[in-house]
Amino acid sequence: MTTLIEPGHVPAGTGGTGVKRIGIIGTGIMGADHARLLTHAVSGAVVGGVFDLDDERARGVAGASGGAEVFTDPYALIADDAIDAVLIASSDATHEEYVLACVAAGKPVLCEKPLAPTVDGCARILDAETAHGSRLITVGFMRRFDPGYTDLKALLATGEIGAPLMLHNVHRNPAAVPGMPSANLITNSAVHELDITRWLFDDEISEVAVHAPRSSGNAGGTRDPQLLVLTTASGVLSDVEIFVNARYGYEVRCELVAETGTATLDAPPPTSVRRSGLHARELPADWRPRFAEAYRLELQDWIDGAGQGATAWDGFAATFVAQACVKALESGERYTVEMPSTPELYRR
Amino acid sequence: MTTLIEPGHVPAGTGGTGVKRIGIIGTGIMGADHARLLTHAVSGAVVGGVFDLDDERARGVAGASGGAEVFTDPYALIADDAIDAVLIASSDATHEEYVLACVAAGKPVLCEKPLAPTVDGCARILDAETAHGSRLITVGFMRRFDPGYTDLKALLATGEIGAPLMLHNVHRNPAAVPGMPSANLITNSAVHELDITRWLFDDEISEVAVHAPRSSGNAGGTRDPQLLVLTTASGVLSDVEIFVNARYGYEVRCELVAETGTATLDAPPPTSVRRSGLHARELPADWRPRFAEAYRLELQDWIDGAGQGATAWDGFAATFVAQACVKALESGERYTVEMPSTPELYRR
Amino acid sequence: MTTLIEPGHVPAGTGGTGVKRIGIIGTGIMGADHARLLTHAVSGAVVGGVFDLDDERARGVAGASGGAEVFTDPYALIADDAIDAVLIASSDATHEEYVLACVAAGKPVLCEKPLAPTVDGCARILDAETAHGSRLITVGFMRRFDPGYTDLKALLATGEIGAPLMLHNVHRNPAAVPGMPSANLITNSAVHELDITRWLFDDEISEVAVHAPRSSGNAGGTRDPQLLVLTTASGVLSDVEIFVNARYGYEVRCELVAETGTATLDAPPPTSVRRSGLHARELPADWRPRFAEAYRLELQDWIDGAGQGATAWDGFAATFVAQACVKALESGERYTVEMPSTPELYRR
Amino acid sequence: MTTLIEPGHVPAGTGGTGVKRIGIIGTGIMGADHARLLTHAVSGAVVGGVFDLDDERARGVAGASGGAEVFTDPYALIADDAIDAVLIASSDATHEEYVLACVAAGKPVLCEKPLAPTVDGCARILDAETAHGSRLITVGFMRRFDPGYTDLKALLATGEIGAPLMLHNVHRNPAAVPGMPSANLITNSAVHELDITRWLFDDEISEVAVHAPRSSGNAGGTRDPQLLVLTTASGVLSDVEIFVNARYGYEVRCELVAETGTATLDAPPPTSVRRSGLHARELPADWRPRFAEAYRLELQDWIDGAGQGATAWDGFAATFVAQACVKALESGERYTVEMPSTPELYRR
Repeated sequence: MTTLIEPGHVPAGTGGTGVKRIGIIGTGIMGADHARLLTHAVSGAVVGGVFDLDDERARGVAGASGGAEVFTDPYALIADDAIDAVLIASSDATHEEYVLACVAAGKPVLCEKPLAPTVDGCARILDAETAHGSRLITVGFMRRFDPGYTDLKALLATGEIGAPLMLHNVHRNPAAVPGMPSANLITNSAVHELDITRWLFDDEISEVAVHAPRSSGNAGGTRDPQLLVLTTASGVLSDVEIFVNARYGYEVRCELVAETGTATLDAPPPTSVRRSGLHARELPADWRPRFAEAYRLELQDWIDGAGQGATAWDGFAATFVAQACVKALESGERYTVEMPSTPELYRR
Repeated sequence: MTTLIEPGHVPAGTGGTGVKRIGIIGTGIMGADHARLLTHAVSGAVVGGVFDLDDERARGVAGASGGAEVFTDPYALIADDAIDAVLIASSDATHEEYVLACVAAGKPVLCEKPLAPTVDGCARILDAETAHGSRLITVGFMRRFDPGYTDLKALLATGEIGAPLMLHNVHRNPAAVPGMPSANLITNSAVHELDITRWLFDDEISEVAVHAPRSSGNAGGTRDPQLLVLTTASGVLSDVEIFVNARYGYEVRCELVAETGTATLDAPPPTSVRRSGLHARELPADWRPRFAEAYRLELQDWIDGAGQGATAWDGFAATFVAQACVKALESGERYTVEMPSTPELYRR
Repeated sequence: MTTLIEPGHVPAGTGGTGVKRIGIIGTGIMGADHARLLTHAVSGAVVGGVFDLDDERARGVAGASGGAEVFTDPYALIADDAIDAVLIASSDATHEEYVLACVAAGKPVLCEKPLAPTVDGCARILDAETAHGSRLITVGFMRRFDPGYTDLKALLATGEIGAPLMLHNVHRNPAAVPGMPSANLITNSAVHELDITRWLFDDEISEVAVHAPRSSGNAGGTRDPQLLVLTTASGVLSDVEIFVNARYGYEVRCELVAETGTATLDAPPPTSVRRSGLHARELPADWRPRFAEAYRLELQDWIDGAGQGATAWDGFAATFVAQACVKALESGERYTVEMPSTPELYRR
Repeated sequence: MTTLIEPGHVPAGTGGTGVKRIGIIGTGIMGADHARLLTHAVSGAVVGGVFDLDDERARGVAGASGGAEVFTDPYALIADDAIDAVLIASSDATHEEYVLACVAAGKPVLCEKPLAPTVDGCARILDAETAHGSRLITVGFMRRFDPGYTDLKALLATGEIGAPLMLHNVHRNPAAVPGMPSANLITNSAVHELDITRWLFDDEISEVAVHAPRSSGNAGGTRDPQLLVLTTASGVLSDVEIFVNARYGYEVRCELVAETGTATLDAPPPTSVRRSGLHARELPADWRPRFAEAYRLELQDWIDGAGQGATAWDGFAATFVAQACVKALESGERYTVEMPSTPELYRR
């Protein structure tokens, strides 16, 4: 039975080399990218096994990962002694069953967000981990490792700009499926800001409201953009513009407003170009270049067992608040978020 | 009887020189600054007379304005044949009576914002000007002349970033009187954004809500900062962070979000400095350096009779919406703004 | 006989109105722009008369300037009692004769740069003004009034970044006449940086070298770009990239390097746009928008008689150093600049 | 005998794990930092052994590197079968002997810059590697891996800004030992720009000149700053401001000027702060945070055997051009650089 010193820790491989063997469930865009990082950019890890419903896709990733074993049964992967820990990057609806299997097997697991799409699913996972008695689950809210966000948190800790009052967030994607359900802007996209707000202020979100202007003609009927207004228990206001058909590029920015100063995260690229009458910096086309460093650091932290990642409780809370925001969007009313109290296992 | 070709036009002086003689009522900070601009930086105008309750202050400004006449009665100044037009920069509560006197005298008048502090006062002015039958009144919403805001309006007109959806505004002052009434943040400060939102989108504000995080410990009990959320008749959302104890400096910024792109106004100064571990641009200490060019252009436009300034109707609308925002702040509810229809005189 | 209190002062008009009547010789792009500013954006001046070889062009500018008189003889304009001061914006080769005529008439004159294209021509002007005994001539090095450059000079005076060591200048135009003489990059364009270097450091340039990389394929045989390396008497190094076929836009920038910090002038516009994968600020197409404020302030200073403009000695020195740079370009050698000592009239 | 498929390739460890065991000679600031990266941030490597003249320092680094063996003889480390490749971070004067020993042992070696302090030393290394017949040596010019510099090279390759004409470089350190030899600014600091110029344009430097303004009062007699002007064989001009007592912080920037546009590398941090009247981004205190990512990618590339690092020939060329610059500084003359032709082993 594994005894974990650090939360989320991945134990050293049994081969005596100190290299940990990771099994990956789901080798789509995210899973393949994690496999690449584990193989080429993270110290102390190798991809030991992969599973995907699309067997050919699994074999491709296994080949690019130094010849990892291809499993045809995800539960066999989870159970295999040659797999030290599991990374779940399969479709959202499957997260719950795989995470529960990992907990049952006593194996550390990194699950892509969301932990589960429903509050009930998240609650079942909390129950299982609590019963297990130690933390095995890390949720892939990678922004917690982004150098920009960690700068903000470090700056707050210095007190140099005083106590926080507000956080203005902008979260834009170039394009989404036309007519996508309006709730998805909250549950799939703004959920990152829900987590970051909780993490940055070490505080729970206690009230939510959602305003929506007229929608973009490019949104195909989806209410896009939206403006979420979140208030934390201690009274910090965090507003979030989520706009998934912004067309011009991918962008995540925020400004933290405190009592004597503010800090802005905009993550400019290292170079700018003067051409055709413009002095410009490029914006990324999607989230992967923007958060490439965050993903690498998240995986390294997980492999090192450093325990800075989001817990199952964080995954539960993000889904819980997201559901309240969806209700607020639909009703036009402000909602008080009635979050259960934090289980003992997740209090630091 | 004056026949105006252009709205707000200041007629040429009777001396045949083409130079217009302006009378200034109120020679505090704003009035003195206007006197300086009219004397040294605007073509076609001189300060012909000044009045202030503080006679010594009036004499000082008159002397610095090339020897303008000092009046001891503001109504005498308004009536004097040697005064072609009147600029009102006295205390807010006195605006109504002086503006009404100018209308009665048939003289063009530039009144600092607010046109009047109450909706009723503004309505009486509208009635007077409507009865007069032509536009004599310009309201000093100088941001309409700021090169940054006019850039935004010009960009919208090109269609290059598509139709507008949102405007995110930030309006910060370093310090306010501790314990100042919370409503003043709206009526004195955010009123500029109320006007700019109407002007930029050529649209009326039809719904308002106000969110307030916990207040800064520096605010002495005032609810500061606040987040206004305004919606226009066509569905554009304009949110306004107003924070009058931001401490670090004076700052007015916004980002206009449209269907295919966004435009940000931040007005950086022409130089930046590298020193002591920082690469920095200076922020202005107050609104005067930030809007120096806007004030100059506003006055030049008024003297030229170019008619780009805010009308009495704009002054009325700003006060009307501000009152709705004050109610929304106090109640925590969303409010529909039931604005009267625009009188014929103000339709272009 | 004019008695000048301030150098370059334009006396008040004889009509008793305090408005000065300016005669403009040369109504091409620059002359027409000066006429517009004097008429619409400068306090205390009107255009009293214009002359141009192209009579129709002169009539157009006169009409747009409130009905100024059109002269068919530039010397008649200079001599006319209804002209208080003269602005010369005709072709470079004609500057000398018109400036000399103004000095002979005892009239203040603002001459566009260069004062004269040759060192000998400039010297004849110095002799005439010295013989006259007081300063009448201002040379149109408008950058001395640019808010960015005056910021740099003010910063140096505070001592906050210590004593100056270097100035890195970039000066780019989108396009020049293909095959233009290589010396023109120095005498027409970089001459602005020669003046700014002297003005900023209040120092003479004592040594020059010119380096030239391979030329742009767009330059049609002109040696373009070039890198001038200037050293002042006190040892400050000022390098100048001059590139007149930079294609992408017009740009003037510099970085001042001092003992404990540096200051950069880049004059960003007030707004930026996010569109098509770029976050960009626009660059001006030519020098007029970039230096619009400098031209206005230069004219206002001249009309006010505030005397901050470049003197005939500054005009002489710029042409003198430019000639040394041309020799350095042609020979590839470093040159010591053997400037005559400053005449008494120009020592402050 | 090692057979290398890729230049600079580090062979897989003999333990069959695929993890390469690196021996580090010199565990000062640079060596310790490399040990940390190899242990915690690079895939596929462990620190297998360390040597330092200061035995205690070596033990400290060995302990922090997962218990690497401490050697008391650097040649024993090089010879040890349990060491797959060697990283040299000892004092400059010792580089030559250790690199030669590695070549003699047929072991891949990453040598911190300079390859050797003298042209003769570098030549002896070239001879040894050429005699060996395949490339074993990588020189630690880490900037070749900096995301900013690789962006510039990638942009040039697209042709989007046309053919290169100039590169303006700024390289500043906050403080150096007072009275340090003036040549050190070139051989220790600007040598990075010599390498980057060669790498970016894939071209040799054929002419050099050095200009020096008056020195900073903080330099204690060293000629600081200096301006190097380098010209490549194809005529691109690369100027380098090197200033090692700039006081305000560490900064490396450049602007690449091409026929239709320019690209600037300034590497801003992800966040900016508004405080005390300034909107600022922090500048790093020294080179390590600025080039942290470059060092990591350089090591990963070396471990992966990807062969993007600088070769022994690049190390020779940098030292060769640096010597020419030192002569140019001392004489004040332009120098033609008479570089030998590239040996066959180093032609791609």
